[in-house]
Amino acid sequence: MFKEESAGLTFVHPIRVYYEDTDAAGVVYYANYLKFIERARTEWLRSRGLELREIELRDGVVFAVRAVDARYVKPSGLSDILDVVTTLVQFGKASLELDQNIYRENELLFKSRVKLACVDRQSFKPKPIPDPVRNEFNQWKTQ
Amino acid sequence: MFKEESAGLTFVHPIRVYYEDTDAAGVVYYANYLKFIERARTEWLRSRGLELREIELRDGVVFAVRAVDARYVKPSGLSDILDVVTTLVQFGKASLELDQNIYRENELLFKSRVKLACVDRQSFKPKPIPDPVRNEFNQWKTQ
Amino acid sequence: MFKEESAGLTFVHPIRVYYEDTDAAGVVYYANYLKFIERARTEWLRSRGLELREIELRDGVVFAVRAVDARYVKPSGLSDILDVVTTLVQFGKASLELDQNIYRENELLFKSRVKLACVDRQSFKPKPIPDPVRNEFNQWKTQ
Amino acid sequence: MFKEESAGLTFVHPIRVYYEDTDAAGVVYYANYLKFIERARTEWLRSRGLELREIELRDGVVFAVRAVDARYVKPSGLSDILDVVTTLVQFGKASLELDQNIYRENELLFKSRVKLACVDRQSFKPKPIPDPVRNEFNQWKTQ
Repeated sequence: MFKEESAGLTFVHPIRVYYEDTDAAGVVYYANYLKFIERARTEWLRSRGLELREIELRDGVVFAVRAVDARYVKPSGLSDILDVVTTLVQFGKASLELDQNIYRENELLFKSRVKLACVDRQSFKPKPIPDPVRNEFNQWKTQ
Repeated sequence: MFKEESAGLTFVHPIRVYYEDTDAAGVVYYANYLKFIERARTEWLRSRGLELREIELRDGVVFAVRAVDARYVKPSGLSDILDVVTTLVQFGKASLELDQNIYRENELLFKSRVKLACVDRQSFKPKPIPDPVRNEFNQWKTQ
Repeated sequence: MFKEESAGLTFVHPIRVYYEDTDAAGVVYYANYLKFIERARTEWLRSRGLELREIELRDGVVFAVRAVDARYVKPSGLSDILDVVTTLVQFGKASLELDQNIYRENELLFKSRVKLACVDRQSFKPKPIPDPVRNEFNQWKTQ
Repeated sequence: MFKEESAGLTFVHPIRVYYEDTDAAGVVYYANYLKFIERARTEWLRSRGLELREIELRDGVVFAVRAVDARYVKPSGLSDILDVVTTLVQFGKASLELDQNIYRENELLFKSRVKLACVDRQSFKPKPIPDPVRNEFNQWKTQ
């Protein structure tokens, strides 16, 4: 599911909140939003025909999170349906930067900026983003 | 921390309940008891000088859970201190069986019988328990 | 998604495996299968028009797991698509029993028998299953 | 366990990495560092005689995370012993700000700045930090 937003393209991934996601304060536990945005990153790449496991086996790289700046705007709770909205902000030779915001209907609950590095699966040292992935990023940008 | 119990020996591992362990019903989420008993299995082996990561690298095996029979007797909640009490029930050439019960002070909250297999770390096919581990199990039994 | 199976009805819920579900042994962490079957129980009730949160607020009850007998048949890994197949085995005044098995295509990976109790949301003491839920169980059985 | 650091006081909480914390890339899953620092916040308050559950019941407030800025410097893996080092940066009428860094021996693995709000446990609206907590923060600062 795609919708245009400003200059770039945006990918929307829906999430349902289950008991496992909540805590004794009655709301989604704060670390679990990072699980939600990671699922959305995987599905965003999958929607472009890119499978992380294949990339790891074929190209020997994984995408490691380097930084997350997260803002918790409003709580969410059991049974909520959330939309994770992912936008590609920029990418370099071995890195990329995403905005990943979470909405419940039109209400913003969570905002984040995520920086990832493309790294060797063994050494975790930076390696260039493989061409098939880079090509998708380029197409994304110019659409 | 050890205490004798019936014929065998018993290992006690304490756990503190944090927000991450609870859910919106205000109690520890049921799957998390399986995390607690896994931590206790690791610390039980560690208390005998056995490190799972070393065993994996040196002997090429991991211990995979084959079966869990779990009974949830009473709920536990935020800030509780729990004791996981682990007893070696029996072991074979490539398998072992444990009782792992969880108490809050003298109150039984959770009972389980866990069957594990010693398996090849790549193929997940059964492999004999490495001698250093087997020796510890034998000593345990005869104490 | 329903398919008939033996005498009763069966509900199938698909699950995608993400990084969060796996562990350093490269497979799905054993406790997470209990998360998968809990999601499937929620979606099974939802498919019958029953929302757990509404039941909790309206009838003052939650469904607490009393027992899980789980068998881990084969491992699953990153990116797998799993089907949780749920069957209502029986139900009483304040309890129910389910079979919840997990398949990857036609391959059985995980089998479980789960016993739940309907309990007061505050005291966690048994309370009769609310009529709207009981009616669905009855229809399920006689279909 | 305390050690002085620059102007303020610092609280050190040790964490052991278990299978549950790792993922198929062989390292600690990125969301789990937020669990680690939350445990450390709880133990920091506990070390000052403050129990979150008592505060919630007595004063009707919980501490909700408003923002996390996290930097993932180096990966950690199975069996690692980590130290979460927590420093109180500042606090206001209904908010506080912490630095929470994670080390493996002398090696920095993870850095974070965390902003929390003191909120009503039902409405999640800001409420003043209860006096017993504020008093501890003041003592901390002037030590």
